[in-house]
Amino acid sequence: MTLSERFRQTRALSLALADPLSDADATIQSMPDASPAKWHLAHTTWFFETFLLRDRKQGYALFNEDFPFLFNSYYEAEGARHARPERGMLSRPSLDELRAYRLHVDEAMEPLLDRPDVSGLIELGISHEQQHQELLLTDLKHALSRNPLGPAYSAYRNGIESAGAVANARWREHPGGIVRIGHEGEGFAFDNEGPSHRALVEPFALANRLVSNREWDEFVADGGYRTASLWLSDGWAWVNDEDRRGPLYWREGEEFTLSGWRERDADAPVTHISYYEADAFATWAGYRLPTECEWETMAQDEDAASGNQLDEAGAVHPEGSAGLFGDCWQWTRSGYLPYPRFQPADGAIGEYNGKFMSGQFVLKGASCATPRGHSRSSYRNFFYPHQRWQFTGLRLAKDI
Amino acid sequence: MTLSERFRQTRALSLALADPLSDADATIQSMPDASPAKWHLAHTTWFFETFLLRDRKQGYALFNEDFPFLFNSYYEAEGARHARPERGMLSRPSLDELRAYRLHVDEAMEPLLDRPDVSGLIELGISHEQQHQELLLTDLKHALSRNPLGPAYSAYRNGIESAGAVANARWREHPGGIVRIGHEGEGFAFDNEGPSHRALVEPFALANRLVSNREWDEFVADGGYRTASLWLSDGWAWVNDEDRRGPLYWREGEEFTLSGWRERDADAPVTHISYYEADAFATWAGYRLPTECEWETMAQDEDAASGNQLDEAGAVHPEGSAGLFGDCWQWTRSGYLPYPRFQPADGAIGEYNGKFMSGQFVLKGASCATPRGHSRSSYRNFFYPHQRWQFTGLRLAKDI
Amino acid sequence: MTLSERFRQTRALSLALADPLSDADATIQSMPDASPAKWHLAHTTWFFETFLLRDRKQGYALFNEDFPFLFNSYYEAEGARHARPERGMLSRPSLDELRAYRLHVDEAMEPLLDRPDVSGLIELGISHEQQHQELLLTDLKHALSRNPLGPAYSAYRNGIESAGAVANARWREHPGGIVRIGHEGEGFAFDNEGPSHRALVEPFALANRLVSNREWDEFVADGGYRTASLWLSDGWAWVNDEDRRGPLYWREGEEFTLSGWRERDADAPVTHISYYEADAFATWAGYRLPTECEWETMAQDEDAASGNQLDEAGAVHPEGSAGLFGDCWQWTRSGYLPYPRFQPADGAIGEYNGKFMSGQFVLKGASCATPRGHSRSSYRNFFYPHQRWQFTGLRLAKDI
Amino acid sequence: MTLSERFRQTRALSLALADPLSDADATIQSMPDASPAKWHLAHTTWFFETFLLRDRKQGYALFNEDFPFLFNSYYEAEGARHARPERGMLSRPSLDELRAYRLHVDEAMEPLLDRPDVSGLIELGISHEQQHQELLLTDLKHALSRNPLGPAYSAYRNGIESAGAVANARWREHPGGIVRIGHEGEGFAFDNEGPSHRALVEPFALANRLVSNREWDEFVADGGYRTASLWLSDGWAWVNDEDRRGPLYWREGEEFTLSGWRERDADAPVTHISYYEADAFATWAGYRLPTECEWETMAQDEDAASGNQLDEAGAVHPEGSAGLFGDCWQWTRSGYLPYPRFQPADGAIGEYNGKFMSGQFVLKGASCATPRGHSRSSYRNFFYPHQRWQFTGLRLAKDI
Repeated sequence: MTLSERFRQTRALSLALADPLSDADATIQSMPDASPAKWHLAHTTWFFETFLLRDRKQGYALFNEDFPFLFNSYYEAEGARHARPERGMLSRPSLDELRAYRLHVDEAMEPLLDRPDVSGLIELGISHEQQHQELLLTDLKHALSRNPLGPAYSAYRNGIESAGAVANARWREHPGGIVRIGHEGEGFAFDNEGPSHRALVEPFALANRLVSNREWDEFVADGGYRTASLWLSDGWAWVNDEDRRGPLYWREGEEFTLSGWRERDADAPVTHISYYEADAFATWAGYRLPTECEWETMAQDEDAASGNQLDEAGAVHPEGSAGLFGDCWQWTRSGYLPYPRFQPADGAIGEYNGKFMSGQFVLKGASCATPRGHSRSSYRNFFYPHQRWQFTGLRLAKDI
Repeated sequence: MTLSERFRQTRALSLALADPLSDADATIQSMPDASPAKWHLAHTTWFFETFLLRDRKQGYALFNEDFPFLFNSYYEAEGARHARPERGMLSRPSLDELRAYRLHVDEAMEPLLDRPDVSGLIELGISHEQQHQELLLTDLKHALSRNPLGPAYSAYRNGIESAGAVANARWREHPGGIVRIGHEGEGFAFDNEGPSHRALVEPFALANRLVSNREWDEFVADGGYRTASLWLSDGWAWVNDEDRRGPLYWREGEEFTLSGWRERDADAPVTHISYYEADAFATWAGYRLPTECEWETMAQDEDAASGNQLDEAGAVHPEGSAGLFGDCWQWTRSGYLPYPRFQPADGAIGEYNGKFMSGQFVLKGASCATPRGHSRSSYRNFFYPHQRWQFTGLRLAKDI
Repeated sequence: MTLSERFRQTRALSLALADPLSDADATIQSMPDASPAKWHLAHTTWFFETFLLRDRKQGYALFNEDFPFLFNSYYEAEGARHARPERGMLSRPSLDELRAYRLHVDEAMEPLLDRPDVSGLIELGISHEQQHQELLLTDLKHALSRNPLGPAYSAYRNGIESAGAVANARWREHPGGIVRIGHEGEGFAFDNEGPSHRALVEPFALANRLVSNREWDEFVADGGYRTASLWLSDGWAWVNDEDRRGPLYWREGEEFTLSGWRERDADAPVTHISYYEADAFATWAGYRLPTECEWETMAQDEDAASGNQLDEAGAVHPEGSAGLFGDCWQWTRSGYLPYPRFQPADGAIGEYNGKFMSGQFVLKGASCATPRGHSRSSYRNFFYPHQRWQFTGLRLAKDI
Repeated sequence: MTLSERFRQTRALSLALADPLSDADATIQSMPDASPAKWHLAHTTWFFETFLLRDRKQGYALFNEDFPFLFNSYYEAEGARHARPERGMLSRPSLDELRAYRLHVDEAMEPLLDRPDVSGLIELGISHEQQHQELLLTDLKHALSRNPLGPAYSAYRNGIESAGAVANARWREHPGGIVRIGHEGEGFAFDNEGPSHRALVEPFALANRLVSNREWDEFVADGGYRTASLWLSDGWAWVNDEDRRGPLYWREGEEFTLSGWRERDADAPVTHISYYEADAFATWAGYRLPTECEWETMAQDEDAASGNQLDEAGAVHPEGSAGLFGDCWQWTRSGYLPYPRFQPADGAIGEYNGKFMSGQFVLKGASCATPRGHSRSSYRNFFYPHQRWQFTGLRLAKDI
């Protein structure tokens, strides 16, 4: 697909994701970490308007002078902005006004789509919007989950039925040695994926599938959430702060999904777990989490566009994938820290990734809510260890 | 007007108040003290459905089994309910669904409107809904004020232009003696307005009008918000906690109104002030706040339906009224405490007023957002001393 | 006793109260509401140093230039001061240094003790120090209660053994009418006790004794802390915030006292209860709390220096008193608000009482920790409805 | 020195550190992160009593049955314990009682000091106590800093005068390659220092000295604390949360030290900086923080007992050291995470280090408060990125 085709397809997918939403659905914000769907639609548009139209297109006039204040996310270099926890106060502009904003920017973008001097920025804008498509779904899931009516975003997609009985996990081994990780070569990548560099790994093995709901039920039944010795110190405090006893969105045999409350599929991958939970489970199971380097090394030969990923708007859910990608982002035990000789880009764009390099852990792979084609083996997703409203899961590792 | 006419009129006014709102406008909640407009529409309907239809009408089936959980406000006797700070998460049911709920209940109510055995409860339900009409407007004002775009609820009403130059305040005197306060006689009143009882008042005077924005500007200019000796101890802490420097909704020469940001009218009554501010102003001015008994005694001969009160849906605002009623609720220095021999009603209805009798102050009068006909001289409105999102104002008093 | 004798006696009692304390005991602060014993010793001394020696004695030099900053409590007119929640950080000055401070000020005070022009201020200083003697004991009790070792302040006083079997409470009746309350005549009183004024009371009765631990146990056993309908709304929130199930310092059949953990005396008055608890108990019992006016009217003929009050340093505790005074301060249902025509004194001293007139309730009587001679029928003690670390108790009232 | 000599010397140093303290000084706790001096004295003693005397010495009776509850720090396997933020409530036991506890345990330990089967545990106990000696000093410094009197712990040590004019920093280079890090060989090390393993490093250079106060002043003067682009996102939030404008303990040209407020020595190493500050400074200077691996590789040939470290009780302070050790712990950009094939020890002792491996950064070296002989090149100190009450500093690194 050409760049312009991909631009149009990405822009269209965002609109399609918002299709089942009322103005009110698209307005509410359920926690400071999450943003309203309207905000995602507008912010991704602001990104193109700011870094492409305003900066690179002569004579472009802003669609609305107030929007940069409302829809800048965290770019300090772009000036003051609306406080993040206040995003849910924006009943206006309406969803329809923001659709008009999108249309306006899309049309203004057309002449730029073939200009080689801005193709890198457009690539960045597309990848940026893809990230927000995933966030739109996970933020919306969180918001809907807070409604006692348990409303569905959309009907369950055909074809995401249970993966059926899951065989015992097998181990995929790697002999260790000096490997090369980080992005290199052609094709888009975020700045934080480079520079490509050598690293040393000791022999290890990864499980050939993610930990399942059945296995997690065993962990719970075995007192996993009540056994201090399994947990990191911060994790144990987190468990007890709110008396947590299972993954986010679980209640008895059910879980909240984008199609409302449903019976849990025992064979599907467990999801919505924090780093603390993933680590405690691995300890309980007698294994450990993979490092980023191990995971990436193993994944370099796989098709990053395989597995259960997002192809179209709908109620996505983990179901079980054959390879390393898809279903859930996978916690690693690697801190999200700069690679050797990493340098953030200049200007506002340089704030994209680098400034978040403290206190977070790397997740690898791709989830059922990741637009297919977005991820790579070198992709570095990152969240704080207590966060779990993303489609997060767990693949076990061990030393050999 | 007959009871059934008043029922229909009140029910219609609530719908009219919501007319200018989008589903999103009616969904958001800007603080735990405030509720979404949709919630007010539904809760007032739940009140009739519960205490009239469910309890007093044979064979009535609930419109929706989930609604009692969602729309009970604080009646412990009615069982578990949705947490108050979570009301803004209800993007569903939609505004249209709640309009259907209202229609359903209104139709079911028709046969009851002439039944004498339930007329007292219907009166209560009407008064209850009138209170929520005022809250709908003030809660909405608060929510819109949080939007950096400063959106208007509706255009400025014709005829609420400035009251023009305000003459110096004059004093209305009362010689004191044994008076009788509290509700008595026919006509509806809340339980907390009684029993009627004797009280002693010393000679006093009340100002013939509310304190104006111009006077408040003088207070500010004189360092009112920076002079500890003017303030109650809790008030001084409140001022400094958030570096408060003026009434809610003020910025420079403007104020936020239900028609958006507007230049302040110097002659209009100041509004959106806390008890702490009212008390500090009175101290600064060399006067004091009235007691509830003084205010009520003076008001007993006035028409409680006079002055600037709510007649129809629109962007109401204080403008200056000739009598004791209208424009703003007026802080008194009287704690909201039980009258001698007060007994709350039996059952859930008994939770209406009595259980709030600690920590709050009484306000008297009626505001521009109070449905005309709702208030009485014996009416006891009450809020905590720091609260100011209602149309609260100040009438000075002195000993003579 | 002459004024100078009372001055010396009061100053000596404070030192005696601190006698059983180590420097560390006297340093710690267990909550922002409470102050360290050292701080009480120093603050009462600062009061004399500031308002008598500095202001009224030619040539007096401050003992230590830093002390006014450290030991001013809340007098805004006296300038900046150490933050209240930080008082527990003052390991220095040591207890011995503060004893030296007291000695220095006491000696400097001697020539003033007979000067008629300052006798009013000295009276105020004595009453002020008496209030802090009570606070020293209750603050210390709170601090010691936080130590898992449950240490004793001192051995149980001889003679404070159980009052023995308590007869059923009897009612003392009053016919109502126009009464006169508030302080008048000679003798010291705080500004908030006046002006003396007329008031109307309806016929009422007060119980002849305080509610006992046995009665409180019945309330608990009857589900008092789990029955929403008994509680004020704020009180019910307070109960559930920390899952409260009994008075402060209770655990099973024991209570924490100034002599450590002891078995509860079923016949002794219940103490360390909040207003919320007192009100809920009265509702459960079918009665109500007295008003301030009722209590004071009934008490005007009693000896305010009778009952179980503080005569000397020791581990005081409620035991059961025959009259209205002693054992526990008694919650009234009256807000702590200004009497008609109340005016605070000029200057810093004017901050003593008036600025606290919002959000609190009046307590009447005197407790086992109140220095005998300190209280009066017109005395207005005041605390917030959730506070209960003072020796607070409950006397029932009813309409007749 | 033999093990028994080192045991006795370590135990004696703790007592000497507490020598200048009053009971009150040793009791107070200024924040949950810090503990009272008394608690450190007791907790280190509890460690020997629990893991040596109770577990390994037949017939040993606890000194006091309550002490395990009071003085266990965070060992879940050792059962319930006193809440950390409550440690400052322990005015009792007194400092003298805890000295008696130490004496009792020391005497009981004597027969064990030569038993080979427990020498590893004794080594651990000594190292544990050395860590608490450093914490005792830094916690105490924090507590004293909260006292407006700015009291000194002790007089300034002779010989810690300024290091004099500091030459420009020079770079010490390393060619990179495969290195070996982590503890190996004989001698004590904590479990988290191993296993020894290979790692790859690219060519780099480290500054030959720490960043100085003079350089930090330039950073401040250049708007370092007001320039968002220099900071990590979490760091920028931290700066603005409390409007931070310099290292902890700075005010104008002074800094708070263990000898009270003193003029800052421009040539001394800057200290009491958070990770966020260290990272922002390095970005401003055009360099970066070292990785743990780089630092350790460079330090392996140095004498870890060199530089300004703790030899005896006194008011220590950074002054400038010639090598990599001493003065300040140095922030690295490496997360505190497990080494390949790391396994925590079995039992309660296994909680010592491993459970803290999330959210923290590694610091290398040793500070002026680290008992000489305690540190190693493989030593892994760790704190959260916002913490700075330790003697933390910064050594710049760069790629070559």
